[in-house]
Amino acid sequence: MTCLVRVVAVGVPGGSGGPAAHGIRDVAGAPGARPGDAGGMGDDEPLERQIRFVLEADRLKTVARQSRITDGSRHENSAEHSWHLALMALALAAHAPAGTDLTRVLAMLLVHDMVEIDAGDLFLYSDSAALARQEEAERAAADRIFAILPDPQDGEVRALWDEFEQRRTPEARFARALDRLQPMLLNMQTGGGTWVAHGVTVEQVLAKVTLIEEGSAALGRYARAMIATAVAQGFLQAGSGPGTAGSGPEATGPGQGTDVAVAGPPAG
Amino acid sequence: MTCLVRVVAVGVPGGSGGPAAHGIRDVAGAPGARPGDAGGMGDDEPLERQIRFVLEADRLKTVARQSRITDGSRHENSAEHSWHLALMALALAAHAPAGTDLTRVLAMLLVHDMVEIDAGDLFLYSDSAALARQEEAERAAADRIFAILPDPQDGEVRALWDEFEQRRTPEARFARALDRLQPMLLNMQTGGGTWVAHGVTVEQVLAKVTLIEEGSAALGRYARAMIATAVAQGFLQAGSGPGTAGSGPEATGPGQGTDVAVAGPPAG
Repeated sequence: MTCLVRVVAVGVPGGSGGPAAHGIRDVAGAPGARPGDAGGMGDDEPLERQIRFVLEADRLKTVARQSRITDGSRHENSAEHSWHLALMALALAAHAPAGTDLTRVLAMLLVHDMVEIDAGDLFLYSDSAALARQEEAERAAADRIFAILPDPQDGEVRALWDEFEQRRTPEARFARALDRLQPMLLNMQTGGGTWVAHGVTVEQVLAKVTLIEEGSAALGRYARAMIATAVAQGFLQAGSGPGTAGSGPEATGPGQGTDVAVAGPPAG
Repeated sequence: MTCLVRVVAVGVPGGSGGPAAHGIRDVAGAPGARPGDAGGMGDDEPLERQIRFVLEADRLKTVARQSRITDGSRHENSAEHSWHLALMALALAAHAPAGTDLTRVLAMLLVHDMVEIDAGDLFLYSDSAALARQEEAERAAADRIFAILPDPQDGEVRALWDEFEQRRTPEARFARALDRLQPMLLNMQTGGGTWVAHGVTVEQVLAKVTLIEEGSAALGRYARAMIATAVAQGFLQAGSGPGTAGSGPEATGPGQGTDVAVAGPPAG
């Protein structure tokens, strides 16, 4: 198990001991400046910028996702979702490919949804035009939000977000696998959840399972077996569905979704 | 920067390739079994137990804290709070003591509040009897919740929770510092927040700043300056307050809270 410390060992000259620590100022010009902000000098000090980033992050708690939490009482928000994914990375680390750097997986999962502060959350099975618009909005959000951090930390955290999006490293693929698996777990606990609510088909879900398999063979198998159970329970049905499964940016090729056999439901 | 991989390299024999992957079963006998649970065989397989742990964790999203999120619209929950702390660990890593293992800090922050699933959240400035009862309830919760994980992962995650509670390692002290700093940041953004709502005094808050200083000198300075601003803005006032500052399990000794000078408010 290697341990890259790129995120850890960021150079923040003067950030640990400077005299800039004082009250808080909200992000200049950002929506939602609030009572209680305390202005002060030295707003460009690294620590001040890091605190501004931390305060900006708080807004992710108000971004609603499609999934419901397991008791069904309300929609999940993107902040608690990010925590759940990071906890999954810890709990399921043994199912990542050998050599996966858990620190970078955790770091990616903690920041990956922050762009939704500006761009909002889009349902996975939206049409391709909506997905393209979302991708553009998220890039603009990344430009704005990660730039709140001081140099060079801004570029390092942006690189983590890019890595997650590009899905080229084992760390990114494992992180993305968790991001796909978690809503399936919630759907299974909430009577089919977004699958039932949006009439998602088994073919659409299977088309996305590739993303899980590419991140973790064991979790991919788990997901396939879970889909079989969902079919057996009537949470998922065959059909073309409302969206455009396979046409989004993460499509794995035509037919990919339908040529994979669904295992029978487990005994017991 | 060292990198302990105790949490990462957990041994889960058979967990990566066994045939146990199937539908989900909720924690046997736990409150809140829900429709949509899918039974199956092999419930004691490591992967099944890890998934049960992940589903149990979801309940932390329903535990309300005293603090409000920065837009003031509602109370924060313990799941999104845990995410916020882990993100703070990333953003503020440069202010941890040299050699701090960020992976362990992140792991501690991700699991530290899970005991609140059973024990609920207790306000920091509660009286000492309530704090003692809470400590007992949290230990029982840790016994139950971390034992959902397979051996030896259960003991490893429990050790992380113990480490956080005992506050003896630099990692635990840094994690605890963030856990103290974050509600202060929220209070500053919400017109004094819990300080005003509960009539907390500056002495009570100063008594807790030691915990931040012991985790990070820079963040301790930041906290002291922020308290000075809070006094200047009328969010904190001198007085004995409603609780028993200094009498909780984290007390640093009588008088500790009042013999520390409050710096003047920052210019500007």
